[in-house]
Parts: sequence; C-alpha cells; structure tokens
Amino acid sequence: MRVRSNHDQSLLIAGERVMNPYCSESTEVSDALLRVIAHMPTLSLPVLLNDKLSQGISDHQFMRIAVWLAQKSYDEGGCPIGAVIIDNETRRIVGKGHNTLVQENHPYNHGETAAIRDAGRIDFSRTTLFTSLSPCEVCASLLHMRGFSRVVAGDVTNASGTEALLSAKGVKVDVLEDTMGIALYARFRQEQPLLDLEDWRGVCAIHRH
Amino acid sequence: MRVRSNHDQSLLIAGERVMNPYCSESTEVSDALLRVIAHMPTLSLPVLLNDKLSQGISDHQFMRIAVWLAQKSYDEGGCPIGAVIIDNETRRIVGKGHNTLVQENHPYNHGETAAIRDAGRIDFSRTTLFTSLSPCEVCASLLHMRGFSRVVAGDVTNASGTEALLSAKGVKVDVLEDTMGIALYARFRQEQPLLDLEDWRGVCAIHRH
Repeated sequence: MRVRSNHDQSLLIAGERVMNPYCSESTEVSDALLRVIAHMPTLSLPVLLNDKLSQGISDHQFMRIAVWLAQKSYDEGGCPIGAVIIDNETRRIVGKGHNTLVQENHPYNHGETAAIRDAGRIDFSRTTLFTSLSPCEVCASLLHMRGFSRVVAGDVTNASGTEALLSAKGVKVDVLEDTMGIALYARFRQEQPLLDLEDWRGVCAIHRH
Repeated sequence: MRVRSNHDQSLLIAGERVMNPYCSESTEVSDALLRVIAHMPTLSLPVLLNDKLSQGISDHQFMRIAVWLAQKSYDEGGCPIGAVIIDNETRRIVGKGHNTLVQENHPYNHGETAAIRDAGRIDFSRTTLFTSLSPCEVCASLLHMRGFSRVVAGDVTNASGTEALLSAKGVKVDVLEDTMGIALYARFRQEQPLLDLEDWRGVCAIHRH
C-alpha cells in the first residue's frame, strides 16, 4: 500500500508517512522505506532514492535492507539470508538479493551470490557487500576472487569463521550485528534445521545426518 | 538436421548416420551424438538415450560432451568452459551447462556452477562432475562443500592448481585431457585475453591489468 498524499509529496508506506524521496531538505530514512527498498528491483530504485538520500543511508541501514531481504526469503518459505552491494563513493545500491535454495531449487545461490548475480559484470573492488549472515567458505572465496574491497557481516552469532580468511586475503571486514536479523536466523534454524544444513553442506549432509 | 531414416530406426545427425538409441544391440555412440547430447536440455535426454546407452558412455565421452558445451558457449561469443554431472551408478546425466559470463551478464557462473544449478537440489555425493577446464578456487570450494565424490578435469594445460586442494579434501580427482578442448581454450585465450582474465578474477583484474 503506497499512495501519494494529496497535501504533500511524502509517501505513505504501509500506513506510515515517510519522507519525500525528492525533497532535498529531508534525508530521513524510515525502516518502512528500507523494507520497500529491499523489495524494489535494483534498476527501479531511482524512483525511490535520489543521490542525496543514498548518501544519507548509514551502514546499519544498508544492513537492515539485507535483513529485510532475508525476511522476504523467509516469508517465501526459503532460507533467510540477504545481501546488498553498494558503490563505495556514491553509496548507490548496485546489486541485492537473497538465498534461493527453495525458491529456485538452486543448490548454491546464497545471499552474496544472488546480489553479485544481480549486479552483473561490474568492478567489485569499488563496492562494499553487506550480508545478513557471515559468509560461507564458497562465498568468501568468491568475494575475494571478485576483488571486493569491503565486506560487512550482520550476524556472526549464528555463523562465523570466514572473517579471518577474508582479512588475510586483504578484504576489509566489519561486523555490524542486526538484532532483528540474528533473531530471524535463529528462529529459522530452530524451525528448519535440515534446510539450514542443506544450504551449507548440500543434500548429502542431510543423508549423513 | 535430425530425421528418422525410412529404412531403419537409426538417426541421421548432421548428415551422419548414428546408432538407434532404442536398439538394444547397438551401444555405439558417435561424436555427432555427443554433440547433440550437449545441446539437448537435460530433462529431455531420455528421447536420445536409454539406460543401456548411458551405461555405455565412457568417461572420455562424457568429457567430450563437456567440451561440446564449451564449444557451444564459444560459438555464442562466451567463455568456452563446459561441465557435465552424471550419477555414479546409472551414469545418467543429471546436470550440465557452460560458462555464461557473456550470455547472462553473469559475473561468476562457470561451467561447474552452471551444471550444478541445472542439476538442482540432489545428493552430489553420488555423482561425478566432468569439467572441460580445471576448476577455479571458488568452484573447487563449492565442489567440496556440495560433497562431490569425484571430479574429472579435461584440461590441466591451460589452467590447474586446485586438483591437490580437492584431493586433500577427500574428493577423488582424475585428469582426462581432451585435445579438442585444450585447443579450443588456448584459441579463446589468445583471441580474448581480457575476457579470460575477467572470468577468473573479475572486472577489477582488467582495470589493474
């Protein structure tokens, strides 16, 4: 539910009034808008965000967008892991996505790989990737091989271990835990332990289980 | 061009008469048929191959199918690397594909990942992957994490290095070099050195070049 008010150019999103994305005075970004950003196709984001607003989105807020992508996947019956890639200079979102093990019957598409696929053939050395969950070994290897300058992990409580590997390869690594994302992943793991296992080590890990 | 002869149930493929896939006496598999197998969607392969014929396809022939997939990608203007996954017991093809860096604007879809994506959520510990080119670090990590029992590399002349890593992780590794595949990749690298570099280390590697 998103309508333009008659009285001003702000947006009503899910019944909540948020800033006008094209009003140069306002740079406030609500959580409701972050959720809309998560669901909007990347190439359509300019209808929501101008350059000034993109510059005003904090690292914590980009992480929250990754978490809203994780929530979207969870709501679709999938694994709740999302990721967002931004340009380091303009802070524009250049790619985003979430795990599609269930949705695409896809045996390895994690949040990071989904966001990289969405971004296409760009120079990732000029970008930062925010992931709602600490990267697996395969994604960590890909992040290094595609030259990412910085990786931000939003949950090192439910999974961790590749941060040191990435740092050793010269990738700057930061941890910005998001409590909503951590709670969501913990709930998923409790509800669907075998899906969580398959997503990490494949169907064969379930058979060995 | 594929028509049924009036006189028997063999197939004419590209003007060459090949075996009848449903004739139980014949288990001969021509190179023309291997090429058709490469191009046929995986789920449609039963119209070409019955179980006895699948059992009769040798490792070298599965490798040639991977090379024909590489040739298909080259003919489309892409990177010539293909892969085939077979069930260890039935030797049925359960997944196959080729690099799609160019075709899908896809920054990391190598032959191995394309074949795994094609196979979907199956138990890879019961399968063997044939790749026309030695796996990169990312694919090697994925092959281990998805539990492949065996990996066969068709070209360790133009690229190599992860065979020892895979072996150390418990994956059986064999090398079955295919001269057609080696010549194809060498030609591609000479014609498109920057595309070859991007496929391995991303766009940033071209900028550093």
